[in-house]
Amino acid sequence: MQKLNETISKIEKIDFTLAENTQKRLDNLTKPQGSLGRLEELAKQIVEITRNENPPTKNKIIFTMAADHGIANEGVSAYPKEVTAQMVYNFLNGGAGINVLARHINARVVVVDMGVAEKIQKGEIESLYFIDKKIALGTKNMAKGPAMSRQEAVRSIEAGIEVVEEELQNGIDLIGTGDMGIGNTTPSSAIASIITGKPVEDTTGKGTGINNKSLNNKIALIKEAISINRPDPKDAIDVLSKVGGFEIGGLAGIILAAAKNRIPVVIDGFISGAASLIAYQLEPKVKDYMITAHCSVEKGHRVILNYMGLKPLLDLGLRLGEGTGAAMGISIVEASQKILTQMATFQSASVSEGMDE
Amino acid sequence: MQKLNETISKIEKIDFTLAENTQKRLDNLTKPQGSLGRLEELAKQIVEITRNENPPTKNKIIFTMAADHGIANEGVSAYPKEVTAQMVYNFLNGGAGINVLARHINARVVVVDMGVAEKIQKGEIESLYFIDKKIALGTKNMAKGPAMSRQEAVRSIEAGIEVVEEELQNGIDLIGTGDMGIGNTTPSSAIASIITGKPVEDTTGKGTGINNKSLNNKIALIKEAISINRPDPKDAIDVLSKVGGFEIGGLAGIILAAAKNRIPVVIDGFISGAASLIAYQLEPKVKDYMITAHCSVEKGHRVILNYMGLKPLLDLGLRLGEGTGAAMGISIVEASQKILTQMATFQSASVSEGMDE
Repeated sequence: MQKLNETISKIEKIDFTLAENTQKRLDNLTKPQGSLGRLEELAKQIVEITRNENPPTKNKIIFTMAADHGIANEGVSAYPKEVTAQMVYNFLNGGAGINVLARHINARVVVVDMGVAEKIQKGEIESLYFIDKKIALGTKNMAKGPAMSRQEAVRSIEAGIEVVEEELQNGIDLIGTGDMGIGNTTPSSAIASIITGKPVEDTTGKGTGINNKSLNNKIALIKEAISINRPDPKDAIDVLSKVGGFEIGGLAGIILAAAKNRIPVVIDGFISGAASLIAYQLEPKVKDYMITAHCSVEKGHRVILNYMGLKPLLDLGLRLGEGTGAAMGISIVEASQKILTQMATFQSASVSEGMDE
Repeated sequence: MQKLNETISKIEKIDFTLAENTQKRLDNLTKPQGSLGRLEELAKQIVEITRNENPPTKNKIIFTMAADHGIANEGVSAYPKEVTAQMVYNFLNGGAGINVLARHINARVVVVDMGVAEKIQKGEIESLYFIDKKIALGTKNMAKGPAMSRQEAVRSIEAGIEVVEEELQNGIDLIGTGDMGIGNTTPSSAIASIITGKPVEDTTGKGTGINNKSLNNKIALIKEAISINRPDPKDAIDVLSKVGGFEIGGLAGIILAAAKNRIPVVIDGFISGAASLIAYQLEPKVKDYMITAHCSVEKGHRVILNYMGLKPLLDLGLRLGEGTGAAMGISIVEASQKILTQMATFQSASVSEGMDE
């Protein structure tokens, strides 16, 4: 708990006074004022977060955190539970969607085992950015009791913080979040419902692609989990321990550590969104350090974004997770930074300025 | 007229039968079916357009076409007319927004003088992909008569076709469209209103950032141009000649040539949208070769997209033109192609498939 408390206490309010000067710089570039819309907003946000007038984007890391879920034994996913571990190997071999999109944007994927239900065989894995932070061999079935102990919940968040701290020595300019865990839309829907106060029906969707019958079963299980565990909506760690997941806790830790270290963090889809909700409940100041990459097809994501007042960059009908949406978003953030630092000014390019009207 | 007719006659209907096989391939990749949303749709479209199962994306070209407009003397822009030529030099020196974003996505910018009001001094320019297709030193004032002759309208479209043909020898895998021309939202609004049948008020916005008084003047001028010239909405060349622009004709030619050569063409914002409307009226089959990069803030763009039934990839509040939105869209198209060709399959990665429900 000490590391978590210390991290939270060191998260500073964003320095919004930097926006004015950045807007002046943007207005002096060879384009009509404001004509690059959200790219200009992003450029300002990155300067505010980093307090660096020319923020670098060289070191881009996507943290893809994996864990298993006791609830997955109840038929909440279209895929069998062993797929979590299989996909971890796929990540480490470079064949998954996140690997392809991370290469596309020249980012590094760091895979973290937060609680996969089997031991990941290392082999030649270590060179490929695999980090073992396994808390347990998956959570317990939340429909029958708490998914994890309060201690494990704290431990999962602190493991996420440690991961960022360990990678800091290699340099981190931009962080993307990502997840893998068969069944993990179920805890995410539970977290979204409890914290936002919206009915479970409004936060629960078909995940990897279940049918209507399975969806009804999933909703009933989430209601059962909430009714049995009675999580306190005002206590994010209680919510995480009762109905959460280890990768969700880990991602909340990544987000808190990003904010503490003034690193912009690009949030992926629904599971990362649930993690951001936990981080936000622990320290609302993290919101300004977050950039919402996209809005997932999974309907609870919109509920989460509305609750925090966040506006996604992209709406491409994605629902894969892994950090795939974050990768697409990072490319836009990087574009915004290049606009700020590489475009010619009216003076340098000898272009006439607009007329005052 | 011969080149234009020949190009149009060689545009084939897209082969939609290829979509089924591509979807099967996508469904066999290690991800839930359909979970990459529009990236999967794009991957299918690129295969259909190119008839290549593994379409390359190495050679990406953004054609930024520049021209001046007689109507610009009537106060329809916040910028003086000489900015068109100044920005051409800025493009050639690599300092404009499109240069920055093209470098970001590893694309080449080809700048085409379609009718800038002054002679572009070549100097060391030729090595930097500058093409001179100047039709005239800007169009005439469309509020007082036709912007150009019918012959010049045909010539501008054919010049666009020639530009693609000339660049084909260097290889083109993906095309982006872009424009530069002080005052060119005015002809674009006129074209949008005439062809879609919507009132001028619905297709006319503030362009580079004029005030309300200037906007009212702009709307009145467009109405005057339509009333004086009486363009035939069913005759796209008549519309282009009466109220168009040389860069708009050139971009229509680029789009037609892209379709003829089965090259996917990523359409930028409002001015490129007006050009795509001209191309679509000449040959509706071009629609399936087009990918709409984004929806511009300029309100007439949405009218154009709705008329053709096109759905933009991005909505980032952009209104710069030059091809900046196209650059952002091309990156997404390229990501979709990499997903199709680089991801592991369930078999190759030994990942269990989803259960039939």
